[in-house]
Amino acid sequence: AKGTRALPYGGVPTFLSAPYRPVGPEETTFGDLQVALVGVPMDLGVTNRSGSRFGPRALRTIERIGPYNHVLDCMPVGELTAADVGDVPFRSRYDLEGCHADIESHFRRFLEQGVATLAVGGDHSITHPILRAVGREAPVGLIHIDAHCDTGGAFDGTKFHHGGPFRNAVLDGVLDPTRTIQIGIRGAAEYLWEFSTDSGMTVIHAEEFAAMGPEAVIARAREVVGDGPTYLSFDIDSLDPAFAPGTGTPEVGGLSTREAQQLLRGLKGLNIVAGDVVEVAPQYDATANTAHAGAQMLFEILSLMVFSPSVGGRKD
Amino acid sequence: AKGTRALPYGGVPTFLSAPYRPVGPEETTFGDLQVALVGVPMDLGVTNRSGSRFGPRALRTIERIGPYNHVLDCMPVGELTAADVGDVPFRSRYDLEGCHADIESHFRRFLEQGVATLAVGGDHSITHPILRAVGREAPVGLIHIDAHCDTGGAFDGTKFHHGGPFRNAVLDGVLDPTRTIQIGIRGAAEYLWEFSTDSGMTVIHAEEFAAMGPEAVIARAREVVGDGPTYLSFDIDSLDPAFAPGTGTPEVGGLSTREAQQLLRGLKGLNIVAGDVVEVAPQYDATANTAHAGAQMLFEILSLMVFSPSVGGRKD
Amino acid sequence: AKGTRALPYGGVPTFLSAPYRPVGPEETTFGDLQVALVGVPMDLGVTNRSGSRFGPRALRTIERIGPYNHVLDCMPVGELTAADVGDVPFRSRYDLEGCHADIESHFRRFLEQGVATLAVGGDHSITHPILRAVGREAPVGLIHIDAHCDTGGAFDGTKFHHGGPFRNAVLDGVLDPTRTIQIGIRGAAEYLWEFSTDSGMTVIHAEEFAAMGPEAVIARAREVVGDGPTYLSFDIDSLDPAFAPGTGTPEVGGLSTREAQQLLRGLKGLNIVAGDVVEVAPQYDATANTAHAGAQMLFEILSLMVFSPSVGGRKD
Amino acid sequence: AKGTRALPYGGVPTFLSAPYRPVGPEETTFGDLQVALVGVPMDLGVTNRSGSRFGPRALRTIERIGPYNHVLDCMPVGELTAADVGDVPFRSRYDLEGCHADIESHFRRFLEQGVATLAVGGDHSITHPILRAVGREAPVGLIHIDAHCDTGGAFDGTKFHHGGPFRNAVLDGVLDPTRTIQIGIRGAAEYLWEFSTDSGMTVIHAEEFAAMGPEAVIARAREVVGDGPTYLSFDIDSLDPAFAPGTGTPEVGGLSTREAQQLLRGLKGLNIVAGDVVEVAPQYDATANTAHAGAQMLFEILSLMVFSPSVGGRKD
Amino acid sequence: AKGTRALPYGGVPTFLSAPYRPVGPEETTFGDLQVALVGVPMDLGVTNRSGSRFGPRALRTIERIGPYNHVLDCMPVGELTAADVGDVPFRSRYDLEGCHADIESHFRRFLEQGVATLAVGGDHSITHPILRAVGREAPVGLIHIDAHCDTGGAFDGTKFHHGGPFRNAVLDGVLDPTRTIQIGIRGAAEYLWEFSTDSGMTVIHAEEFAAMGPEAVIARAREVVGDGPTYLSFDIDSLDPAFAPGTGTPEVGGLSTREAQQLLRGLKGLNIVAGDVVEVAPQYDATANTAHAGAQMLFEILSLMVFSPSVGGRKD
Amino acid sequence: AKGTRALPYGGVPTFLSAPYRPVGPEETTFGDLQVALVGVPMDLGVTNRSGSRFGPRALRTIERIGPYNHVLDCMPVGELTAADVGDVPFRSRYDLEGCHADIESHFRRFLEQGVATLAVGGDHSITHPILRAVGREAPVGLIHIDAHCDTGGAFDGTKFHHGGPFRNAVLDGVLDPTRTIQIGIRGAAEYLWEFSTDSGMTVIHAEEFAAMGPEAVIARAREVVGDGPTYLSFDIDSLDPAFAPGTGTPEVGGLSTREAQQLLRGLKGLNIVAGDVVEVAPQYDATANTAHAGAQMLFEILSLMVFSPSVGGRKD
Repeated sequence: AKGTRALPYGGVPTFLSAPYRPVGPEETTFGDLQVALVGVPMDLGVTNRSGSRFGPRALRTIERIGPYNHVLDCMPVGELTAADVGDVPFRSRYDLEGCHADIESHFRRFLEQGVATLAVGGDHSITHPILRAVGREAPVGLIHIDAHCDTGGAFDGTKFHHGGPFRNAVLDGVLDPTRTIQIGIRGAAEYLWEFSTDSGMTVIHAEEFAAMGPEAVIARAREVVGDGPTYLSFDIDSLDPAFAPGTGTPEVGGLSTREAQQLLRGLKGLNIVAGDVVEVAPQYDATANTAHAGAQMLFEILSLMVFSPSVGGRKD
Repeated sequence: AKGTRALPYGGVPTFLSAPYRPVGPEETTFGDLQVALVGVPMDLGVTNRSGSRFGPRALRTIERIGPYNHVLDCMPVGELTAADVGDVPFRSRYDLEGCHADIESHFRRFLEQGVATLAVGGDHSITHPILRAVGREAPVGLIHIDAHCDTGGAFDGTKFHHGGPFRNAVLDGVLDPTRTIQIGIRGAAEYLWEFSTDSGMTVIHAEEFAAMGPEAVIARAREVVGDGPTYLSFDIDSLDPAFAPGTGTPEVGGLSTREAQQLLRGLKGLNIVAGDVVEVAPQYDATANTAHAGAQMLFEILSLMVFSPSVGGRKD
Repeated sequence: AKGTRALPYGGVPTFLSAPYRPVGPEETTFGDLQVALVGVPMDLGVTNRSGSRFGPRALRTIERIGPYNHVLDCMPVGELTAADVGDVPFRSRYDLEGCHADIESHFRRFLEQGVATLAVGGDHSITHPILRAVGREAPVGLIHIDAHCDTGGAFDGTKFHHGGPFRNAVLDGVLDPTRTIQIGIRGAAEYLWEFSTDSGMTVIHAEEFAAMGPEAVIARAREVVGDGPTYLSFDIDSLDPAFAPGTGTPEVGGLSTREAQQLLRGLKGLNIVAGDVVEVAPQYDATANTAHAGAQMLFEILSLMVFSPSVGGRKD
Repeated sequence: AKGTRALPYGGVPTFLSAPYRPVGPEETTFGDLQVALVGVPMDLGVTNRSGSRFGPRALRTIERIGPYNHVLDCMPVGELTAADVGDVPFRSRYDLEGCHADIESHFRRFLEQGVATLAVGGDHSITHPILRAVGREAPVGLIHIDAHCDTGGAFDGTKFHHGGPFRNAVLDGVLDPTRTIQIGIRGAAEYLWEFSTDSGMTVIHAEEFAAMGPEAVIARAREVVGDGPTYLSFDIDSLDPAFAPGTGTPEVGGLSTREAQQLLRGLKGLNIVAGDVVEVAPQYDATANTAHAGAQMLFEILSLMVFSPSVGGRKD
Repeated sequence: AKGTRALPYGGVPTFLSAPYRPVGPEETTFGDLQVALVGVPMDLGVTNRSGSRFGPRALRTIERIGPYNHVLDCMPVGELTAADVGDVPFRSRYDLEGCHADIESHFRRFLEQGVATLAVGGDHSITHPILRAVGREAPVGLIHIDAHCDTGGAFDGTKFHHGGPFRNAVLDGVLDPTRTIQIGIRGAAEYLWEFSTDSGMTVIHAEEFAAMGPEAVIARAREVVGDGPTYLSFDIDSLDPAFAPGTGTPEVGGLSTREAQQLLRGLKGLNIVAGDVVEVAPQYDATANTAHAGAQMLFEILSLMVFSPSVGGRKD
Repeated sequence: AKGTRALPYGGVPTFLSAPYRPVGPEETTFGDLQVALVGVPMDLGVTNRSGSRFGPRALRTIERIGPYNHVLDCMPVGELTAADVGDVPFRSRYDLEGCHADIESHFRRFLEQGVATLAVGGDHSITHPILRAVGREAPVGLIHIDAHCDTGGAFDGTKFHHGGPFRNAVLDGVLDPTRTIQIGIRGAAEYLWEFSTDSGMTVIHAEEFAAMGPEAVIARAREVVGDGPTYLSFDIDSLDPAFAPGTGTPEVGGLSTREAQQLLRGLKGLNIVAGDVVEVAPQYDATANTAHAGAQMLFEILSLMVFSPSVGGRKD
């Protein structure tokens, strides 16, 4: 007998079993953190099924993600000073634009102290205010893995819905479209996403992903974003519904988790400055597979941060 | 062999298998209807779990509700000229107050032509604009079956959430609190509902319901509302979660469906002018029991309309 | 330590964990049995949702029913020579009338050797051929617990559907309507069941059950069937869908399992000659509660057989 | 703000959100339609689990399929005059052969007026009477995507079960076996399907599909059916149960949705005259993934009809 | 607008949304607490279905329990200094007796500092070591709400299974059987529980509960335990499976949540010194109703502690 | 009409519908069997979620696996004398080491009579005692398909948990590590499995499987195990959770069922002497896909035994 291991099902759950370090509204002493894992339980931007407001709780509850990433050979929660810092405090659960403002200011608190952020949504509209915080000084690049381009314009009286964050970010000058690649695109709304190609983004559809293979896509992604600061956004609906049914706008014909892992792991060494996993809606997740996949992707992104020049900076 | 019966599972589903008669935005020729069954797929007012935007679809899909009500001895869809008129057209799925305005104007279209309405929510906030349409000329009475009083004030920047429709309706002068009875109340938010008693409403808690028995509650309800025009609002969370798990703010210790049916059937002959069934969230309804119970209550309320002086007017 | 108990989850499952004694098509040596537990996996008679063809497997799989009935103070599987004899062999899964013929001849094999039968359906249409076997010499009485009278006439070209077995049995001269009581009746098809009252059956609706209370219903049932040979048929949809969602034609407002157990236990000493539990459709039974309730009712009926003069004959 | 989009969850659901245009038994004025989407809620032909009688309702309820097919670059519901015409009216839900007769005559009504049909089952036995209507003048070719060849002979007293429609169609002279290809075949009943090879059909097993790759299978399919009129039948159990668990006879080792989409899209320009999607059984579909996949395949087949010489006739 | 309320679905979940105050193995400064809410994720004692090791996580995740108990008119988390102190640290998840030793010593840490404990299981075997800590100086009384007496002897080589904690506690001298009442008893294992009556416990079976009514049972319970220190143990399987399917040894015919709440609330003023809620197994809880009921009962017990002379000491 | 086929859903379920031949504790006359299918309902060795104690029942209940394997062209249940011999009789469900002793002695009974065994777990710890029986005379080779190497050392006071069976087997001298290949390895516990490589096992990670392709892995496996006696162990968590969610320690990024079937079928002709399928936990298996996949893999392994020199010995 060699001692004892923690129960996977014991205690209060946190993202990736990271230490729990809630950050209060006035606290300013968290600058020693390298990465803040932040919950963003907000889904007012959805076009169809709501539910991702329960996404952060769902990902926290998944057992047994980590500690070791044997492909990237790292222990991200151990190697980085990372913590679950709790959720964005919202002034109102009824005000989409207000929530966006709260998100932006909350993420700025971390980023301005040099703490990288890794967000758990919530719907994809949250990425717009996060990008406003991340790219506040200069537009960043983007690796965006999703079934949808999310570069649509306003409708139903708003542009802040979850179908438009990347258009908004470009127009706000915080995202560089020429350093943006969108991977896994499919579904029946292509006609809404002209902005992607018009603005110079690189779009890899799901069927192109299948034809090219993951390695060619990785090469293309590395080429597009280069060495500059890059945001990594993982929408769980990039995965096929067989792998991730628990989401609001599923699209058949998507990636497998194995492909997604291979893709993410191929991004080692890029200058990832922040990221997110969004759109897990546990109400539609009969097996918890979706939350499980989301937590795994969160782990992969945190692993990449070990090797990101602007976060962990590990060389090999 | 004596002919053929309709398949319960065949064709396009409508509320209570009523005829489908969609009413377009400019149409004005539906005044021959006695009752319009209206879907209101809107849940922006919830405090916790969303999902009742899928309530109308869930209730339509339930098979085998009706045709005959053997306790009240009526065939409501046959005796009344009733139709599924489709859903409220919303200008934006992102604007709670705008949705309320759309609801009010849509229900006015029917009510101003003398068509009684029976709404299927959606969250309970929809009852405020419906009451504004129903009580536009004079405040109405209310029989309100629910786990919560829904007479709370503003928070998170709005008073239009699903915890406050009846306060709003009283303050707007469209609901008469002295002719209002709230039945089945429980849960842990009693301190938010002082307005109920302060304004003169009658409140029957769940434990009082159990102690008094249905017949005494029926008598009290008839006494409170009298002969005047009365709205009947049925929140599915009045039922115990064992009977209706598929809702956003469940509370243990509620009514059984048998008690709820007995209660409703005891209201025969009252002057019911309009009504609703709200808060069915099918994402949380693993067995479809909640939608089933909701459709049954819809049937019971429509049955009451057969005997309402201002709708069907049948005497016995 | 005092020895070992059987694992509830071990081995090949049988009804009530009774011994497995399959009876082959030519076998004639099972006359030592007192009760044969027979599966009848046939659901061609349903009007709506199919699925009860999986009912026998579902009831076999329930763990931990029995051995001891502390209210009736008996151990039925131990006190009676009872066995799970397997399922009715059907010549065709596509022929409703043929299946009925197979059922009748299979049950005759047992009954003619003096073996009482306890069937597990399957839809309720199976009770017609079983009653033809049971009442082949003289019509029997019936205690029928159900949401529906099942005395409807032919439609869709057949009278053998699950809505008519008791009409058919009366017309075939194998069921005595004046010794028949139907308990728990509700739903919206009352107009189809005139035959019940016309033929002299006693009908206790669900709301009457609630008003009278179980003891009065028991007294009425004992009065109706008297000392004569009596069949006991338990349709799982007699229970409220909160207790038994897994069935093809659920009706809200039904019995609780506690009420059903009290009712059955009140029938101790009656001359129960055969019985059934029908209409469990496990596809709709997310929690297995329905199969569990069905297995418990099977156990209660087998317990009654301990005290039935024509089966166990125990006096106290 | 640029206007408003339809709510995916609003209103009465129809196949692919196509216009609802019910066709009554005597109506003869629907000849302007190019494609009729027809529900066939019948599952009397199953060998194992029933449930696909609820298939049409399940597919109607799926949100967000279409409007745009970005791979085939078409908007099928917009480009074709297509409508949801409701379900086949059956004279009896208890008579397999009678249902087949009703199906044949109902589909003839459309086909004789030059309206192509796209059916939603129901079990696969429905394809036999549909093919009798489609091939009434001359035998058609067939692209058949399925886990099973469905060319078995009679058993249990009938040849009309869901394991034999294509044998029956060949023997009736309405299907040309030499212009038939069956793709995705697997499972443990190969010994029942000698008729496929004996009659000259081309059979591509699931493991052959994996070895050849989709493009080679597409080429083979195009070669087999050539330019002649061709029926396209998609059995949802061709998909692996990970992608489509909600079906009656699932077989592990099947196609992914991505493979199935690639396969279907590769058939652009073929002379598709009619088609179907069958065997969705929503009772077994905990995540709705199966109905979702079925609706997507329906959309892909309708998209192919845009380019079929005998339907939309678009050149590309 | 009047400010903001906490999101029910936000942040890291704790029991009853109480403050999270993890207590480390050497920490000794928690004596200011009045009540420690302690998770006990251990289910090695089950006889049938395991799974309650996930019970503490399941109860923490339930939203919206409390703050106000309107029947007892108290806000227990506010009025008492109560905290979620995390889970018992186990040296091994493989050693039933070792876990019991860890439980006993962990609870002693709190009790010896005068902190009352409220445990969340875990299977019912945990109550034995807790009682050893609670009754270490003198045997306590017990109100035990359960489907099973749990006074069985050893089998399968151990007496520490979940069917025997109260026998063990009596034999260890930490539980006074004459001040013990067991309520809700049913199921088919009565013959194992002779110890209950032999030792002088009062046993109220489920059918007796129904016959007596809650008020008479409350009176009997108050009489049995008197003013002395009393433990309150709530096994979730006391509830009927319709209300609480998610448990390892369900028994039909149980209490409703309304009855259970009435029963607990009737115990106001008794000298409750510690308590537990056990046997929630979320794997079997398709709707989360069981965890919800468990959390509500936890809230009711904590509310009683407000009025317990040895905890909150509030007079009324 | 050509006769009748067995109902897939009829009767008492057995593994692969094999004959049921329970073997009592003293029976010695089963030496005519070639293969015993043995249930091992024990999950005391799990590190996280329990539940696989219900695995044998779950696999028995799957319909329609077999009879014919068209890729290997055999009918294994027909060609081999195989039977479902029931479950291992355990002396205690509470004693992990005792259960292991019971497993070893039970399997020895079969193996010593020359009956090959095919076990259905239960958790993976059962393979250790089985290997002790299989390799009692000489160490065997192993093809091990799994997400985890299961060569970890002791923790929590025991080495008999499900994370260590293969280390234990090597150290006991019953498994030859140089003739062992582990396929599908992934997850975050790689640092625990140094023993695999240190002892000379061949490890193929999931990402290596994807890169090499099934055929190269097959070649490697054949090379590693050669012609010697070989055990085949299939842990269901080798499959991706999309294919097999119902297991205790799922890991995303796994094999598809199609890949697993291809892999197994590629092992034809190897000297398979015994095998198992383990870790199916039906509580987490909302669609039954996991049990279905498990039963299919059981069928594939039994098919391999037809061609194994030491079992069926068929040449091809």
